[in-house]
Amino acid sequence: MNGAESLVRTLVAGGVDVCFANPGTSEMHFVAALDRVEGMRCVLGLFEGVVTGAADGYFRMKGSPASTLLHLGPGLANGLANLHNAKKANSGIVNIVGQHAVYHIGFNAPLTSDIEGLARPMSSWVRTSPDAKSVAGDGAAAIAAAKSSPPQIATLILPADTAWNEADGIAQVPEESQRASYSSQAVDNAAKVLRGGAQTLLLLTGNALTEQGLALAAQIAGKTGCKVMGQTYNPRMARGRGRFSIDRIPYVIEQALPILKDFKHIVLVEANDPVAFFAYPNKPSLLKPEGCEVHRMTSGGENSVAALEALASALGARPADAKPQALIELAKPSGPLTHASIAQAIAMAIPENAIVVDESVTTGRGFFPPTAAAHQHDWLQNMGGSIGFSTPVATGAAVACPDRKVICMVGDGSAMYTLQSLWTQAREGLNVLTIVFANRIYQILRGEFDGVGAGEPGQRAQDMLRIDRPTLDWVALAKGMGVPGRAVTTSDEFVKALAEGVAEQGPRLIEVQM
Amino acid sequence: MNGAESLVRTLVAGGVDVCFANPGTSEMHFVAALDRVEGMRCVLGLFEGVVTGAADGYFRMKGSPASTLLHLGPGLANGLANLHNAKKANSGIVNIVGQHAVYHIGFNAPLTSDIEGLARPMSSWVRTSPDAKSVAGDGAAAIAAAKSSPPQIATLILPADTAWNEADGIAQVPEESQRASYSSQAVDNAAKVLRGGAQTLLLLTGNALTEQGLALAAQIAGKTGCKVMGQTYNPRMARGRGRFSIDRIPYVIEQALPILKDFKHIVLVEANDPVAFFAYPNKPSLLKPEGCEVHRMTSGGENSVAALEALASALGARPADAKPQALIELAKPSGPLTHASIAQAIAMAIPENAIVVDESVTTGRGFFPPTAAAHQHDWLQNMGGSIGFSTPVATGAAVACPDRKVICMVGDGSAMYTLQSLWTQAREGLNVLTIVFANRIYQILRGEFDGVGAGEPGQRAQDMLRIDRPTLDWVALAKGMGVPGRAVTTSDEFVKALAEGVAEQGPRLIEVQM
Repeated sequence: MNGAESLVRTLVAGGVDVCFANPGTSEMHFVAALDRVEGMRCVLGLFEGVVTGAADGYFRMKGSPASTLLHLGPGLANGLANLHNAKKANSGIVNIVGQHAVYHIGFNAPLTSDIEGLARPMSSWVRTSPDAKSVAGDGAAAIAAAKSSPPQIATLILPADTAWNEADGIAQVPEESQRASYSSQAVDNAAKVLRGGAQTLLLLTGNALTEQGLALAAQIAGKTGCKVMGQTYNPRMARGRGRFSIDRIPYVIEQALPILKDFKHIVLVEANDPVAFFAYPNKPSLLKPEGCEVHRMTSGGENSVAALEALASALGARPADAKPQALIELAKPSGPLTHASIAQAIAMAIPENAIVVDESVTTGRGFFPPTAAAHQHDWLQNMGGSIGFSTPVATGAAVACPDRKVICMVGDGSAMYTLQSLWTQAREGLNVLTIVFANRIYQILRGEFDGVGAGEPGQRAQDMLRIDRPTLDWVALAKGMGVPGRAVTTSDEFVKALAEGVAEQGPRLIEVQM
Repeated sequence: MNGAESLVRTLVAGGVDVCFANPGTSEMHFVAALDRVEGMRCVLGLFEGVVTGAADGYFRMKGSPASTLLHLGPGLANGLANLHNAKKANSGIVNIVGQHAVYHIGFNAPLTSDIEGLARPMSSWVRTSPDAKSVAGDGAAAIAAAKSSPPQIATLILPADTAWNEADGIAQVPEESQRASYSSQAVDNAAKVLRGGAQTLLLLTGNALTEQGLALAAQIAGKTGCKVMGQTYNPRMARGRGRFSIDRIPYVIEQALPILKDFKHIVLVEANDPVAFFAYPNKPSLLKPEGCEVHRMTSGGENSVAALEALASALGARPADAKPQALIELAKPSGPLTHASIAQAIAMAIPENAIVVDESVTTGRGFFPPTAAAHQHDWLQNMGGSIGFSTPVATGAAVACPDRKVICMVGDGSAMYTLQSLWTQAREGLNVLTIVFANRIYQILRGEFDGVGAGEPGQRAQDMLRIDRPTLDWVALAKGMGVPGRAVTTSDEFVKALAEGVAEQGPRLIEVQM
């Protein structure tokens, strides 16, 4: 068995049985091993940003890492933006990156580059296998790193000769560590704050946003009167009718500040101290009001559900304390497409147990309230702010959960970065309904232009914001990659297209012309 | 004047008057400055790989750097693969990368990452401006680095507050250094080798492949009997009827070794000691025969034309010594599409003074001989091996040379990485004819699979090589981005489509279904 085969067998034995791949010459022995090793599903992407984003989506839904297969430094580089997003989401990924044979690196052939240097900014674990006999052990260590608490981006660099030379066999992955516990002292401190009665925000993200974590937060809120919110962006949130519905801190600073201004305490459950997405002249970076005390109860990787359980218990909060929430009435929209009618249509269309991947940017700023009344679903967001996140993440989520419908909502500007995802969705017959909001402008930048104090854009500045010359034809782009699509211009058309898109199997695309 | 405006004015004053851009919030003051500063042409790309590749193509044709405008670490990351290719081509580029305001970086907002760490592997010069008053001077230093010998990828990182705070005005770029000269001793040594009479290869790239450099090499070859070849890949080569036509070292090792086996000496003119593109089991990395002596006459950044002039003079070689070369007879092909008929059709279609960007990979391995008899043109190749190079480079070349037709030849696998280039071509009305060779497989990998000793691919391995399920519809993809396209399946259709594509203004695409 050669090094590549020892790695593929180690991955499968270690529970990493999906590989999102865009291989090249240096990775051919890994590819060849697929024919000899049962149990590895290899999914081809035509661009590496698709590959790494899919691994992120896979982890978020499966809770367990996939691997990637990337071609030397440039292949890794093309995947870095979505690795950045995955790292910020605390997703675990085993990146396998090919490299020249060890003895060939010094000759500076065209593809030679500093792969470790490229890997480090977006990886928490980086290693280059020195020889074929080390590959299996290094692979097992990479899996362990990807599964650690918090999960990590683990990048294993595989020189071609370590792939083709003879290896010793597979390696065992160290026992999966239990999800790290939590600090009782931090829970006691949070309980003391909440008992104090001053206005307190319980700010959640990560594991705290599971159905169970939210239910506990609802009890605590009912018992103590604290407010519960989510971060502006969260890796995954359990939502929909019957679940505790919470608001997120708004992206826009002017909207966030008044919401936070009266809190005396913020208790962080995995969340970060609320910080502005960008800096703006004469606006604060930190969003909490002056004098507000911040208390961390759990960090990423800790067991936030258990901590919330302990907190509820310390406070004497029980299920009956959870206050009923008023249900929003959903109504089928009609007439022209507006942000509100789009939100209503989507809220009505989300099927039971759907996965919603949200990169709707400005169009979707009002999507959250009405969709709280939709069928139960999981809501996935962009954690690193690098656009082009959603179509790959939707692809990986669909691979992880073939029985669930994935609804990918994306602005036209964002969708262009990784549009190759559609081809993988067609190839794998994935159940993804992509909704492209075609407002034909980087609309968010129009607001930001003003936000940073640059005033009113003139013609040349506007040319850098608008993407309407020429307009993108998303139905043609989807067709080019084997995905049936349709364009809609009214609410009625949109409602109809959504109903069909949800009912049909396989990938579909709707271009919402705004 | 704020820091951003001081930078834009410094760029324009320093001769950097084209900016390929994909900006975000942190770059809005740079964008705003475009409305106040005359003379900067800003070209929007919908993905950063388009932006950096276009800057590479621009430099290759203009000989002078463009700038880019990229959004923080992930925006830079998306552009790194084509910066890798540009760096290997010795192209000069001024990268401007936005960053959070200095005081905001420590708060770890979502887009925060190690931008300098990301920049270093593909940049020769990296600097973060510390404050607004430093921006103009840092910009001037970046321009000087980009214009140095050899030219450099210079990455200037611009925290948002250095863009919006008050600056002191523009900065002067140090006088452009003359292209470095050459070593007389190295020329004398080369002359001695060539006078010796042993079989010698004069191996050229870079500046030596201008019409003038090639003419001198022809005289030297005629006088001394040495062989003249180009590297396998070259940034730009002057070609076509009336120019000295040379072969390149084949990519395939088994073809390269017999061609090189009898040489006793290799004289390198900017070129590298011939090295295999990849390592393969039981095949050499270095391609020269045992005992062959390698002599470097010039390196990148040196004046190879002047060195060749001195060499010709030392050898007493004159224009009359250049041997006439037999002209290949071009004939209009007909019948089914084959690699040979495709090559003939292209050779006949290349218009006078065209720019040919070649990422035709396996389909194009036979394109070189017949196109030697085409109208005069420049031939640009991928220097770093990261695919997705050609459509952006063609875009930038067309911006640099609006009066020349650009013909971009690209495999379907490669074209998918940076297909967003087509939109920029449509937006700017660029004169680019893209020819996509749709063989629906990463055909090169089929050969490499065998080459690395992995044998015959089984079904699962083939699934990682073939991209035929579903097939890509390039006419639809082009239409989606505003570029008229047509598919051809016979030589006659291809000849007709080429003639129309060359005659028409603006971007066009031909899908060659093989």
